Amino acid sequence: MTLDAVLARVDTDLDAAMERLMALLRVPSISTDPAYDADVARAAQILAEDLSGMGFDATVRETTGHPMVVAHSGPDAEAPDAPRVLFYGHYDVQPVDPLELWHRDPFDPAIEEQNGKKVIRARGASDDKGQLMTFVEACRAWKAETGKLPPNLTIFLEGEEESGSPSLVPFMEAHADELKADLAFICDTGLFAEGVPAIVTQLRGMMKEELTIKGADIDLHSGMFGGVAMNPIRVLSDVLSALHDENGRVTVPGFYDGVPEISDALRDSWEALNFDAEAFLGAVGLSHPAGEKDRTALEMIWSRPTAEVNGIWGGYTGAGFKTVLPSEAHAKISFRLVAGQDPARLHENFVDWVQAQMPEDCTVSFAPAIGSAASQMDTSHPIFEMTRQALSAEWPEEAAYIGCGGSIPVAGHFKEILGMDSVLAGFGKDDDAIHSPNEKYDVESFHRGIRSWVRVLGGLARA
Amino acid sequence: MTLDAVLARVDTDLDAAMERLMALLRVPSISTDPAYDADVARAAQILAEDLSGMGFDATVRETTGHPMVVAHSGPDAEAPDAPRVLFYGHYDVQPVDPLELWHRDPFDPAIEEQNGKKVIRARGASDDKGQLMTFVEACRAWKAETGKLPPNLTIFLEGEEESGSPSLVPFMEAHADELKADLAFICDTGLFAEGVPAIVTQLRGMMKEELTIKGADIDLHSGMFGGVAMNPIRVLSDVLSALHDENGRVTVPGFYDGVPEISDALRDSWEALNFDAEAFLGAVGLSHPAGEKDRTALEMIWSRPTAEVNGIWGGYTGAGFKTVLPSEAHAKISFRLVAGQDPARLHENFVDWVQAQMPEDCTVSFAPAIGSAASQMDTSHPIFEMTRQALSAEWPEEAAYIGCGGSIPVAGHFKEILGMDSVLAGFGKDDDAIHSPNEKYDVESFHRGIRSWVRVLGGLARA
Repeated sequence: MTLDAVLARVDTDLDAAMERLMALLRVPSISTDPAYDADVARAAQILAEDLSGMGFDATVRETTGHPMVVAHSGPDAEAPDAPRVLFYGHYDVQPVDPLELWHRDPFDPAIEEQNGKKVIRARGASDDKGQLMTFVEACRAWKAETGKLPPNLTIFLEGEEESGSPSLVPFMEAHADELKADLAFICDTGLFAEGVPAIVTQLRGMMKEELTIKGADIDLHSGMFGGVAMNPIRVLSDVLSALHDENGRVTVPGFYDGVPEISDALRDSWEALNFDAEAFLGAVGLSHPAGEKDRTALEMIWSRPTAEVNGIWGGYTGAGFKTVLPSEAHAKISFRLVAGQDPARLHENFVDWVQAQMPEDCTVSFAPAIGSAASQMDTSHPIFEMTRQALSAEWPEEAAYIGCGGSIPVAGHFKEILGMDSVLAGFGKDDDAIHSPNEKYDVESFHRGIRSWVRVLGGLARA
Repeated sequence: MTLDAVLARVDTDLDAAMERLMALLRVPSISTDPAYDADVARAAQILAEDLSGMGFDATVRETTGHPMVVAHSGPDAEAPDAPRVLFYGHYDVQPVDPLELWHRDPFDPAIEEQNGKKVIRARGASDDKGQLMTFVEACRAWKAETGKLPPNLTIFLEGEEESGSPSLVPFMEAHADELKADLAFICDTGLFAEGVPAIVTQLRGMMKEELTIKGADIDLHSGMFGGVAMNPIRVLSDVLSALHDENGRVTVPGFYDGVPEISDALRDSWEALNFDAEAFLGAVGLSHPAGEKDRTALEMIWSRPTAEVNGIWGGYTGAGFKTVLPSEAHAKISFRLVAGQDPARLHENFVDWVQAQMPEDCTVSFAPAIGSAASQMDTSHPIFEMTRQALSAEWPEEAAYIGCGGSIPVAGHFKEILGMDSVLAGFGKDDDAIHSPNEKYDVESFHRGIRSWVRVLGGLARA
């Protein structure tokens, strides 16, 4: 059977595949720092050449920022009804500072042992070069064993994911017909737990607000004005304190409008995961779930919208004391959004709600809000269940549909601009130290990751 | 009559007095900056020599910090019952930065015109070299005209007032018998208004608290932990928001215990001052008195305790966003205290009150609190009324007994350590820019100030 043969080829080719990954990891493609622009371009070039060599119609596509790599495999006359799918990954990486905390050069990758397991150590090993290469290597093995590439496949690799993706939406809008597919695969997430693969089917969105409350024209002496002049820190504290009610619910009017309850089936499957909230919190020195009192920790993280103050400042914050009434007080607040919430309407409601709390002599201003809607995948497309079964076949445990507390904006853009849902499947582990010193990717993740995609390609070929 | 002769001598000697003041102003006696230690010592030396030259038994007294100047006039056999009085001033000055905002060298004093009035421009012109020299010059004129110094007089000049007075209490305790008098005069305050002299009879105390609320061991990612982990900024906001009730009263238990109502007579006299709260607030861009709803602005500033947040910080406060749940949040809070409030008990009550509000997983710690009690003078000593009449005779308007929202700790120390009340009388004006660039002292303040003290010395001679 073909699938077994391809899987066997993956196994025998693993060392060579790791060499190819390490060649890519040697390129310091840090997208946020212009000093590395040429390296980012070189990483794109390496990938396009590799894909072209495999038979893809692969090109490096310039943008006003870093380039995109787009590769198409074309149709197969023997499989005219094969679904069209798009694979997304990103080849840029995070900066490496603090460099002194790395125990080796972040761009001199090596296979090391960590906790009795082999790992690939380098910046980008997990996020996202290692992950995107699992798919590339799956295609390579497929081609080598079957003689042709999987049909109707587009590989779409971005070089700006770690720097806010400024070119992504314009590029997708300009090339919508070229990129549009039945479904996207995104390989930028992780396992649910050791040995437990996962498909993320809901991602929270984000709304960021920064507000400044102003009182007097200048900082005032508290001996002269204390008590008699309105203190903006007091007003800000009142606003922030009022942001949650005694049950942990966010009080901004309309905040929960349109927020759906998760289905009973999903709730059951989440409960089956036996998420250990105590261990999750205990790892960071906490013991009690805060937030909404009538929700489980997993429900809160994956499916409930939240409001958190990320920063606050005002008045004198140095050593000693300066008995001022400051003229201004500031806060940064981020809302994690779920499907059904409209960032624009939330912004309006939030502004109105804060404005209404301003006392005489205080005004509030807002920095431009930054919002992205949540994503909730429609898992009814059969490729979701096919993928889940493919992952389950490869890994020790059954694959789960899970939520993700963070935001992966590209999934939202695929839905909005190209009308396609995304299958978010990846093989990162919690201890991969992405964005941190000594990033690694388990050799197991890389190996089983390639084999997982081979199984998915097999499923697509049978579809 | 002797008094008129002394006053006439003040007038004819004014130019020479201004020269003497300017000589003192040329010494950059910035006490907080060790680079100026020799200048501080030189200022003390100049004053001691000047007072010795007049006939005082004047000495520079070393401390572990900057020296004190102590000068005694001794008894007068012809006036055996003359009251013993102590005069306090300070010869150190504030730093001068931002230097670029000065329109001349802060230590190159000059007589300039400002708003049609002659002013002495220099750092320390008003705070406090100009003010302390009004008393020294009054003694000089007294001696020149009568042939002897006013009897039973101690002049006590400090060189650390602008840097927290670390040596003051130890020195007073070590030399209590030498310094103890029937009453103290402190010349470090201002007129109530243009042409309206004032004696401050109540000064608020101060309690400074700095608190840190801790949650998780590390900053947390709001995508992973938002909603489910307790956010210390939220807890801090709750605490600060709860610090005042809806009527502007401070909610710390026992906060108002022992706080006296002002007497009807004092209330009447304050009302007679026709304080323009609208103009007072309007000058800094405000329009509505905040604070306790059932109190007038003047009552709040002079006679009511307050709580103000002077600084707040936590989380990410730089440009852009970092969606963290910080592990810590901080605030600096100062309480202005009035007579009857015990700083130590307030600190205990405050700590208990905050502790009780900590939710699971949050702890709070406090920096060592810094407190000084309020001062309320017992104005029954006849020297108070004598001084008020002396000031009223010199200035266009009647002198008023007023309160002061700020703190002048030396007055509290005189009361606690030496058991004496203080007559706080000074001639500064609101626009003197003390602690700020281009500090000045009106020539009128200096001239009428000297004459005011001559009248007070006359009153003491008749006492």
